[in-house]
Amino acid sequence: MERSLARLRRSAPERVETLSAYLRYPSISSDPAHAADVARCADFTAHLLADAGLNEVTIHPTALHPVVTASWRGAPGRPTVLIYGHYDVQPVDPLDLWDRPPFEPHLRDQRIVARGAADDKGQVLMHIQAVRALLQETGALPVNVVFLIEGEEEIGSPHLPAFLQAHRELLRADLAIISDSSMWGEGQPAITVSLRGLTLLELTLTGPNRDLHSGSYGGAVANPLEMLARLLASLKDDQGRIRIPGFYDAVRELLPEERWRMEAAPLEEAEFLADLEVPGGWGEAGRPLAERLWRRPTCEINGMWGGYCGPGSKTVLPSQAHAKLSFRLVPDQDPDLIAEQVKGWLESQSFPGVILDVQRIPGGGRPILVPHDAPFLTAARAALAEAFGREPLLIGEGASIPVTADFKTVLGMDTLLLGFGLPDARTHSPNENFHLPTFHTGTESLVRLLHHLA
Amino acid sequence: MERSLARLRRSAPERVETLSAYLRYPSISSDPAHAADVARCADFTAHLLADAGLNEVTIHPTALHPVVTASWRGAPGRPTVLIYGHYDVQPVDPLDLWDRPPFEPHLRDQRIVARGAADDKGQVLMHIQAVRALLQETGALPVNVVFLIEGEEEIGSPHLPAFLQAHRELLRADLAIISDSSMWGEGQPAITVSLRGLTLLELTLTGPNRDLHSGSYGGAVANPLEMLARLLASLKDDQGRIRIPGFYDAVRELLPEERWRMEAAPLEEAEFLADLEVPGGWGEAGRPLAERLWRRPTCEINGMWGGYCGPGSKTVLPSQAHAKLSFRLVPDQDPDLIAEQVKGWLESQSFPGVILDVQRIPGGGRPILVPHDAPFLTAARAALAEAFGREPLLIGEGASIPVTADFKTVLGMDTLLLGFGLPDARTHSPNENFHLPTFHTGTESLVRLLHHLA
Repeated sequence: MERSLARLRRSAPERVETLSAYLRYPSISSDPAHAADVARCADFTAHLLADAGLNEVTIHPTALHPVVTASWRGAPGRPTVLIYGHYDVQPVDPLDLWDRPPFEPHLRDQRIVARGAADDKGQVLMHIQAVRALLQETGALPVNVVFLIEGEEEIGSPHLPAFLQAHRELLRADLAIISDSSMWGEGQPAITVSLRGLTLLELTLTGPNRDLHSGSYGGAVANPLEMLARLLASLKDDQGRIRIPGFYDAVRELLPEERWRMEAAPLEEAEFLADLEVPGGWGEAGRPLAERLWRRPTCEINGMWGGYCGPGSKTVLPSQAHAKLSFRLVPDQDPDLIAEQVKGWLESQSFPGVILDVQRIPGGGRPILVPHDAPFLTAARAALAEAFGREPLLIGEGASIPVTADFKTVLGMDTLLLGFGLPDARTHSPNENFHLPTFHTGTESLVRLLHHLA
Repeated sequence: MERSLARLRRSAPERVETLSAYLRYPSISSDPAHAADVARCADFTAHLLADAGLNEVTIHPTALHPVVTASWRGAPGRPTVLIYGHYDVQPVDPLDLWDRPPFEPHLRDQRIVARGAADDKGQVLMHIQAVRALLQETGALPVNVVFLIEGEEEIGSPHLPAFLQAHRELLRADLAIISDSSMWGEGQPAITVSLRGLTLLELTLTGPNRDLHSGSYGGAVANPLEMLARLLASLKDDQGRIRIPGFYDAVRELLPEERWRMEAAPLEEAEFLADLEVPGGWGEAGRPLAERLWRRPTCEINGMWGGYCGPGSKTVLPSQAHAKLSFRLVPDQDPDLIAEQVKGWLESQSFPGVILDVQRIPGGGRPILVPHDAPFLTAARAALAEAFGREPLLIGEGASIPVTADFKTVLGMDTLLLGFGLPDARTHSPNENFHLPTFHTGTESLVRLLHHLA
């Protein structure tokens, strides 16, 4: 292992060159005009995997962008890890906010700046280069490895679940590893041990059969916008608690160990709110910020509309009012059961003069929680601590990563979420970048991780 | 007078021909492409007034469409009436819902069908033809008359208030008459004795300084959409009463005479709601439908928007939420005082984590109430009863007619609102029409009205 680490250090400049070459592909998955670039980037990904010494490198066509897989199964009896990442990138607009063209990587402040640097090509390449160093130096890996690098992550992975279903044998593994998130800060590694789930609903309230003049009709019939406001206002009490019966029934309270870990993550509410320039915080009373973000469910209105929304006035009493709701879920809430509870409760509320329709919006998924005594967590903590010289924080994430739920339900395995972007990586924004010292130390930690997992 | 009525009857076919010619002008005031048509229609209006024997026929240019005036002041010592109307029309889209082109008038079911038939060319022409019959038959009118026919009513009369200010002497009169509304039904005349006023406001709630990911941030900060729903839901109590302190202070309760008149208007709530296909009525508890529509103030949300309003989901926690509110006002509520009361109350409500901004939207005006013992009302009731053989109903109108407030404040006179459209006249809609028997009987009633006003 030490020889592999030494090789990594010697080859640092050459490895940054490879990253730079990878970042030159404008693999924007959402833009049909870039479909050929996405395909070329899949080819280059396959080339990187083959060059690392992996076997069975395959480019699998899908209905849109290809999936690239490769494996090394030379350690029978040892565990198998599936390394997941994506080679596609976000769009680049607004282009004029980039200091240089987004697909012409350049170095600044120890960072490489380009679209996809941190999300996710840089992190994919760390895994490939860790494996390459081990195979080149020792001819073997301490564990079996399967790579699964897709090209549709930034558009919601529409074809991935079917791909997992169709290639269960090829992808068979004991643990998935995803590096597509962030460190806590420079020099401070972090492992994400919880993700929230998601249920999405759309509400429509219908009153009169046409838009009415609010002068001629106002006072005589219910205004769907007013009834929508009343309905939405009734979802929470004054303490920020969701009023739907049964909503909290499956929510696991933090264990003492989990609370202790959460408090170790220095998430300062004052700093957090100052960044957002809000006049004050708000949320479920009596719960610290980190718990509210990571381990408490939410009900948010994501959109609300109806009537006249242009300049000046139009005195309309509209026929319909609409809202989109999302519920972030925590272990062990079930997205389908929550949808039923919310729907049932909304329909039980009585608002005169309007008819309510509640529809599920496709998407969403289950919450994830890594058991605090999982062996792979112990291995990852050790690997990161050795490489970075500092114990990783075990943090939560308020958002969902649907593929982790797919790995669990389709392939039956847990996921280790190990992120190496820095908080200022500007993913999805102009001047996206990846911090090169973290790139190098992180790659070393991945070599160590494969040993610890063995 | 009888000779004048006989002349009207004799000339009926010729008068319908004149109406048909008037309706051929596509005088759409909102469409710059029709500016020349509007001007030609102003010329034709002037021709009609001169042909009727009126004096001082003048086309006054404005910054947009001309105003046409004419007068006859040959009855010194007698009252003067100002007859207001408009020669401009609404747009015609959707064009494919018209049975025939909207500016090619045709007859069907005793109706003339064309854009502007009832709103307002037909009703303007009734007044001109009533005066013409009297002048041609007798060489004089029983009262002095001023015509004021504008070309911008359908776009909110932007230049009319300044025109009134600048021509106070020319327009000096004791009473204004407007025929731009409806009968109660075929054969059942109606006089509108109350109009509601209007105050318009726009609210903006601002939370975080940018749109946030509702997964990563949900639970930590206030969602402006949620706070907007709570704020709007707090405007009324469960009985439909507006909760703003002082809001009802100036509202005049109905006098027994007014209540009796209102009950005479057969406004059936079940029929009213069935037409709108709503599952039930809603409004201030304990108030009959007609009172809620005509003599009680309202608070309506005319528009509400924020966040993601497209198809599918986008899990955004938006930076801002918006709403437009309108308040219909009744005598003696003051639009400016109401705006201050609403603003003050909204700003006194405490919603954490967001900042509220309340702006007045231009527009609106004072409520109008004709005293039940006004002599011009007695005259109009007699004229309509004689012509139609049925007592007119004295009704209210929930909407505002801003020009009536201008006549009161700028020219110091009350307005008699006498409408001859039938409820199925389809004003502003495809296949607008005017019922010809009503056109003829109504014109006779206007001859009688001038006599009664003398």
